[in-house]
Amino acid sequence: MTSISVTMETINVAVLGATGMVGQRFIQGLVGHPFFEISDLTASSKSAGKPYSKATRWYLDEHIPDEVKDIIVKDTKPENVKADIVFSALPSGIAKVVEPEFAKSGATVASNASAYRMAEDVPLLIPEVNPEHLEMLEVQRENRGWDGAIITNPNCSTVMAVLPLKPIYDNFGIEQVFVSTMQAVSGAGYAGVPSMAILDNLIPFINKEEEKVEMEGLKILGEFDGSKIVPADFTVSASCNRVAVIDGHTESVFVKTRDASDRGGIDIRAVKRVMREFKAIPQELGLPTAPENPVIVREEADRPQPRLDRGTQNGMAVTVGRVREDPILDFKFTCMGHNTIRGAAGASILNAELLVKM
Amino acid sequence: MTSISVTMETINVAVLGATGMVGQRFIQGLVGHPFFEISDLTASSKSAGKPYSKATRWYLDEHIPDEVKDIIVKDTKPENVKADIVFSALPSGIAKVVEPEFAKSGATVASNASAYRMAEDVPLLIPEVNPEHLEMLEVQRENRGWDGAIITNPNCSTVMAVLPLKPIYDNFGIEQVFVSTMQAVSGAGYAGVPSMAILDNLIPFINKEEEKVEMEGLKILGEFDGSKIVPADFTVSASCNRVAVIDGHTESVFVKTRDASDRGGIDIRAVKRVMREFKAIPQELGLPTAPENPVIVREEADRPQPRLDRGTQNGMAVTVGRVREDPILDFKFTCMGHNTIRGAAGASILNAELLVKM
Amino acid sequence: MTSISVTMETINVAVLGATGMVGQRFIQGLVGHPFFEISDLTASSKSAGKPYSKATRWYLDEHIPDEVKDIIVKDTKPENVKADIVFSALPSGIAKVVEPEFAKSGATVASNASAYRMAEDVPLLIPEVNPEHLEMLEVQRENRGWDGAIITNPNCSTVMAVLPLKPIYDNFGIEQVFVSTMQAVSGAGYAGVPSMAILDNLIPFINKEEEKVEMEGLKILGEFDGSKIVPADFTVSASCNRVAVIDGHTESVFVKTRDASDRGGIDIRAVKRVMREFKAIPQELGLPTAPENPVIVREEADRPQPRLDRGTQNGMAVTVGRVREDPILDFKFTCMGHNTIRGAAGASILNAELLVKM
Amino acid sequence: MTSISVTMETINVAVLGATGMVGQRFIQGLVGHPFFEISDLTASSKSAGKPYSKATRWYLDEHIPDEVKDIIVKDTKPENVKADIVFSALPSGIAKVVEPEFAKSGATVASNASAYRMAEDVPLLIPEVNPEHLEMLEVQRENRGWDGAIITNPNCSTVMAVLPLKPIYDNFGIEQVFVSTMQAVSGAGYAGVPSMAILDNLIPFINKEEEKVEMEGLKILGEFDGSKIVPADFTVSASCNRVAVIDGHTESVFVKTRDASDRGGIDIRAVKRVMREFKAIPQELGLPTAPENPVIVREEADRPQPRLDRGTQNGMAVTVGRVREDPILDFKFTCMGHNTIRGAAGASILNAELLVKM
Repeated sequence: MTSISVTMETINVAVLGATGMVGQRFIQGLVGHPFFEISDLTASSKSAGKPYSKATRWYLDEHIPDEVKDIIVKDTKPENVKADIVFSALPSGIAKVVEPEFAKSGATVASNASAYRMAEDVPLLIPEVNPEHLEMLEVQRENRGWDGAIITNPNCSTVMAVLPLKPIYDNFGIEQVFVSTMQAVSGAGYAGVPSMAILDNLIPFINKEEEKVEMEGLKILGEFDGSKIVPADFTVSASCNRVAVIDGHTESVFVKTRDASDRGGIDIRAVKRVMREFKAIPQELGLPTAPENPVIVREEADRPQPRLDRGTQNGMAVTVGRVREDPILDFKFTCMGHNTIRGAAGASILNAELLVKM
Repeated sequence: MTSISVTMETINVAVLGATGMVGQRFIQGLVGHPFFEISDLTASSKSAGKPYSKATRWYLDEHIPDEVKDIIVKDTKPENVKADIVFSALPSGIAKVVEPEFAKSGATVASNASAYRMAEDVPLLIPEVNPEHLEMLEVQRENRGWDGAIITNPNCSTVMAVLPLKPIYDNFGIEQVFVSTMQAVSGAGYAGVPSMAILDNLIPFINKEEEKVEMEGLKILGEFDGSKIVPADFTVSASCNRVAVIDGHTESVFVKTRDASDRGGIDIRAVKRVMREFKAIPQELGLPTAPENPVIVREEADRPQPRLDRGTQNGMAVTVGRVREDPILDFKFTCMGHNTIRGAAGASILNAELLVKM
Repeated sequence: MTSISVTMETINVAVLGATGMVGQRFIQGLVGHPFFEISDLTASSKSAGKPYSKATRWYLDEHIPDEVKDIIVKDTKPENVKADIVFSALPSGIAKVVEPEFAKSGATVASNASAYRMAEDVPLLIPEVNPEHLEMLEVQRENRGWDGAIITNPNCSTVMAVLPLKPIYDNFGIEQVFVSTMQAVSGAGYAGVPSMAILDNLIPFINKEEEKVEMEGLKILGEFDGSKIVPADFTVSASCNRVAVIDGHTESVFVKTRDASDRGGIDIRAVKRVMREFKAIPQELGLPTAPENPVIVREEADRPQPRLDRGTQNGMAVTVGRVREDPILDFKFTCMGHNTIRGAAGASILNAELLVKM
Repeated sequence: MTSISVTMETINVAVLGATGMVGQRFIQGLVGHPFFEISDLTASSKSAGKPYSKATRWYLDEHIPDEVKDIIVKDTKPENVKADIVFSALPSGIAKVVEPEFAKSGATVASNASAYRMAEDVPLLIPEVNPEHLEMLEVQRENRGWDGAIITNPNCSTVMAVLPLKPIYDNFGIEQVFVSTMQAVSGAGYAGVPSMAILDNLIPFINKEEEKVEMEGLKILGEFDGSKIVPADFTVSASCNRVAVIDGHTESVFVKTRDASDRGGIDIRAVKRVMREFKAIPQELGLPTAPENPVIVREEADRPQPRLDRGTQNGMAVTVGRVREDPILDFKFTCMGHNTIRGAAGASILNAELLVKM
């Protein structure tokens, strides 16, 4: 990462696709950031040339931050952007084409898009889970002849399950995971779910979501053998549903471990303990966006709840509750996290922070 | 059932607990019924003595039916009720005490309460699934020395899963079932879920619900050996959630069969076919409340949806969708049905219809 | 109306813009209609050529009616349509161009679009309120040289207020009306209001809606003097809001009458009586879509409510409640009606029924 | 106010009725407050004796503040409370009895209850609007022989309209005001509005609310003549509605001024200017809870919106939008504010801050 300064000087960053939901969450997370300074915002050509305040319809609370209001939005092309790190909130189809152009031009792309998540030489990163996968960047640069790089964060539903499963995987091994999700409408973008579709209703389907949840965790928990990832050796089955919640994906998870099954049962207290005690490199390094505790375990019978818990630790902690024995497998629990922060913009920012500090 | 006439004359019926949500659904289902005529309505003592229109706050569309408006509500005691069949929408605690009193006095109690569902000599009935369990009534009468009887219908979440699982059980056998529910607020009664609790939110917990879903299905699919039920030999794990839907419980279900696992996989078309073709005694007898098809299988990727599908066949059909292979077990699917009709009042009425006709 | 048969034979009708929300409500209202038979369905060119079941995404309960499933959707052009009456659910911009083409070709266009509502020679019709405005059609045909004609129904918010105000206007005169609306999301079309915009929220603005509510009622209650409408002589002020309701527009209305103000106050019982007793030509003629009572007045303190009352009389009645004295003007009340039935498709169908019978 | 210290030492305060919605908002506003320190929390006798964390079910985000978790809740009696100022979140019926007992015992009661709002010698205070009404306290003490006192804040719907109307009243005079409200469910307390009542629905009635909105503003904008309040000389008509919003009351307001009507119309820019420039004593004194601007005027066509704007200036600013000419009166606008902060707990705390500083 020779192009990235690790001194106290701030690093210029850009947000690609800055006018949408996730783009706005990027801005929210980057304004006032100790490492980063927003130098460029890009969007589709119909927004290009306008000040950001005219180009976007601000969806979040109150007003557009003053720091970005007057930045002139540019077309999403490398030559329009001077930033060392570019955060990508692009739709996957566009990301597929554009992100490599930025990487080629020397920028580090911290992408929330799904386009390159499963690519063999692209890290699919949760800083608390697989920071060592950053080593893949050397392979990536060599393979692709890029000065820059692409790193990605997982799908918003993947991260909510994988964070609490990491200490389980490390301590007990995992054989099977069933996940049934109840996902917030913001996950589909501002206009993604019409109100007619979701008021007094739910939709038991999200396009390509189950495939992502079933695949991504295995890569994230896999091992980098110096040239490629050897995926983790367990199986995930997902059923994904959309519910009338603004922000916060909630998931019912059922887990079969390797060890506990051998020993005839699992100690629920041990499960909760390893989740609670779980800390990792972002916490050790004190990365600005890192939550103090990546996983919060609550004891109340009726938590986590999206409206009450999604803001925990600035939206970067996953809250777990209802950890209990499972009559078929070993244990089951409910987890919930903020899908456009921990599951999107915050995840990418934390990835970039890790990159800067490592 | 000597006390029950099977001629064309209508049978007098009462609704116990007539002023609540399920009580109103009973009235809706019984007004104009070809077999039954409402003779009595009961409620708590503070409603007793008032005409029904003053005693209740009508929650359903439009107006209280004229047929019941002026019925004077009575205290829930056998001596106040002349009906041969009493439909019980009582809270479980009260049902526990009062239902046996009615049974003793000679009435047949068709109960939606959970109090006696798991009692050894009480049928837990889904007319399409285990009509032969009605034979238990002889044991019940003998045991308890009653002239009347108690029959029960399952919990509203149980029935949505068990109806589509019945043809699976018969054709392929079942070993494991995982269920994650997304349940409507009406399941908790009119005032059960405050709006503050559920707007832009969900609650990942329903008191005692998972236990019911995990137990009841085994009894229903069990065999009556002449003296008791031998429960079905499989295991259910449930995770129950409340979502911002008025009516209609939706469930993500994951199934491991016996046969398919032996044969290295299941034919999804066969699964859908046996569900679609599933008909049973209520359909053969043409019971008035029986749906033409107990299980509707839809092919659209995003169905069933509670607002669109809960009214199917007057709320008595369960709609299934997204039947697909499961990467761990054999197959998974989503099912949905109207919780206060198929899952409560309609279920009890269908039970009573079966009793009358058999 | 020489082109329209008034015998018992059914009349061929088409729905223009058949794939949207209002288009589907037209189909729902026309299937099985005693006067009309759907012969053609049109939509945009990208749907043309497909069977209706493939061209539309059915938003209403259960399934697409069998009667229309296989009708091949055509491009919205007169030469593609053989119907005598065409129901228009077109967007206003397209309606502006296309409706005259249909009228010119000889069809009677019963339009829900706003394009021609305020045109001098086009009836803006509520059959219970101003059936005599149909006389304008002669002027229209003469002016425009059309064989066919255009008739329109009012904006969905207008009709909910004007129906109950009609008997007030006739009995007491009207000087001032203030209306604050709480409108359902279906009024904006299926994808018109994103869920992100309305969950735990409301939007105090609907584009061009206040202007319509302030103008249309004056035309409807105006007098046709043989050549043009002399608008009613009172003033309306509207404030329009969107709320998280699927169907049913609710309105707080404050009214100053002419007579009562002279007499130092109004008799609230008289207001309720004239609303309750209000019947008109559609009721006398027994038009199939006409509600028995156009205005239902309820006495409960907390009615009308959209979810409970919108279905009243098949969605064609307006429910009024909370009729009470106003401390500034004469009286105030709340009214509510089904916006895509009484306020759109049902209104156009009733218009056409009137035309057929008169 | 001899009993209240105005040095930098903190003042002991209690929250009466600390376990409900408004009680929790009081705690949220008082923890870390520069003037106040919570010494006592009271609730009904069934909570008395328990630590606060066991006595309450915390409804707000994340966790109960550590500062109050272990405070032992007491019965709501003066002898149990050592505080100089007591904040009352009591239900009105209980407040009626209990608040005078506290005042008699020497405490200053800053009450959110409606019991004494309209009492002749009790200030109904909005610190930005009528701080001079605090002078009434002398009359109150004399009348009632109390060492302490009662001050009240208005109903949550009143304050949202009166704050923006204050600069209008001062600059243009007011003759008539029509208000139609769309109020959040939190206004009814945590369990006040069942989800069954409000999902896909609204309720056009709130018990006794319209009377409050119609009366309270006149007292607040009235003049204290040394012995009593001479109410402001205009009339308010209100229509109050409950909608599916968690927090934030929105109101459509129509205004007839005195001056503008004389001059044949009002300058909308002047209306917006006086609202925007409006500041008062709390802003001058820099009271900790005072918003920088009590009234925010936005220019976007579709603001204010409760979810986006209720948090403005910590929930203490009222946001106004859509200021425009009215075809009947002079102008109309929409206003919105946080009902349990600016409309309840925050209002009482600001009252107490004013009292301390004056």
